[in-house]
Amino acid sequence: MNQDTTKIPQATAKRLPLYYRFIKNLYSSGKQRVSSKELSEAVKVDSATIRRDFSYFGALGKKGYGYNVNYLLSFFRKTLDQDALTKVVLIGVGNLGTAFLNYNFIKNNNTKIEMAFEVDESKVGTQVGDVPVFHLDDLEEKLEDQNIEVAILTVPASSAQNITDRLVSSKVKGILNFTPARLTVPDHIRIHHIDLAVELQSLVYFLKHYSEDDTEMSQDGIISE
Amino acid sequence: MNQDTTKIPQATAKRLPLYYRFIKNLYSSGKQRVSSKELSEAVKVDSATIRRDFSYFGALGKKGYGYNVNYLLSFFRKTLDQDALTKVVLIGVGNLGTAFLNYNFIKNNNTKIEMAFEVDESKVGTQVGDVPVFHLDDLEEKLEDQNIEVAILTVPASSAQNITDRLVSSKVKGILNFTPARLTVPDHIRIHHIDLAVELQSLVYFLKHYSEDDTEMSQDGIISE
Repeated sequence: MNQDTTKIPQATAKRLPLYYRFIKNLYSSGKQRVSSKELSEAVKVDSATIRRDFSYFGALGKKGYGYNVNYLLSFFRKTLDQDALTKVVLIGVGNLGTAFLNYNFIKNNNTKIEMAFEVDESKVGTQVGDVPVFHLDDLEEKLEDQNIEVAILTVPASSAQNITDRLVSSKVKGILNFTPARLTVPDHIRIHHIDLAVELQSLVYFLKHYSEDDTEMSQDGIISE
Repeated sequence: MNQDTTKIPQATAKRLPLYYRFIKNLYSSGKQRVSSKELSEAVKVDSATIRRDFSYFGALGKKGYGYNVNYLLSFFRKTLDQDALTKVVLIGVGNLGTAFLNYNFIKNNNTKIEMAFEVDESKVGTQVGDVPVFHLDDLEEKLEDQNIEVAILTVPASSAQNITDRLVSSKVKGILNFTPARLTVPDHIRIHHIDLAVELQSLVYFLKHYSEDDTEMSQDGIISE
């Protein structure tokens, strides 16, 4: 791939997994080509945005023809490194953590939760969604000989920073933070933060302050201004 | 309030609940004023963005002084309608739904989950996190005399569209969709979509394609390009 994908806008990059999933579905259903309008209706992102996103990767489509599904699929597979599996660790096997473990990520993705950690002794030693649950005390030891770069944090906010510090000392490079805590990390660690309360309050705010046809909003959590 | 807050960018609007929470914490701890730098470190949004966000609301701060915490608090409380309670319904009391019900929204927010719906008979008739769980068959009947405008959807993807259609027929105006399904709704319904697999894959993509100091990323799920 000669395209320098590191230069695409991050908002575009964030939509790639979404495009990939639907292109895979199209491919499975035997579809050979797709228009930006059809894609738009499926992924709920306006077609101008789709065309702009795709343009960063060069001329993927042809006017009046649309996009070749097979080409798109192999393109996105390469771009998203679908052939390389990323190992993930999950900390905190509460309700939210259990939801993650039962969610079959690998079906649509190149990520796999390898192991989970918990302090509740009744869960330690069990398997949840085929993922082994270890005691949090053994975190460093278990991570040592694994090549795990991503952690999902579903612990109480009060222990989030302490566990983050321990993850940072290991090889973890990215954290998906579901706690309300704002974490302090070195610059080389990337954190994506998803706060359920903020998401809910944000929806309420938009309902009250933005009329229905005021602005187009994509469904993928990215708001187009 | 004379400010026309409907004209602020949606990305700014999405950060308001976050600002509000930390300003409330500052207020509780007795702090009288705060600089944009201090706010920045607390909420992990760069201070230029904070100053720009605040500027949409008029001159809230003074150079060399920072922001008056008391003023900010009452301003955000008004802007976010903290004095009006928004009633929420949750559909699907699985692991993710249970996590929501146990999450004490009202502590930091003006939202309250009033009731939950489920098809699993073992959960119907119980209370989870003080929220009563009803059978999904009774959805229309139970919603009829309630003023519930927001729904949280934590059901299997296969039933998401059908339940959405039923919610749309009631008074629900906004849906927080946690299923992987892309929902089709009339224009006057607002959907915010949070897809756990897409969030994870997106983090992995950024780890592989963006070097640590390439771009500043805020932790609130909004990516600054």
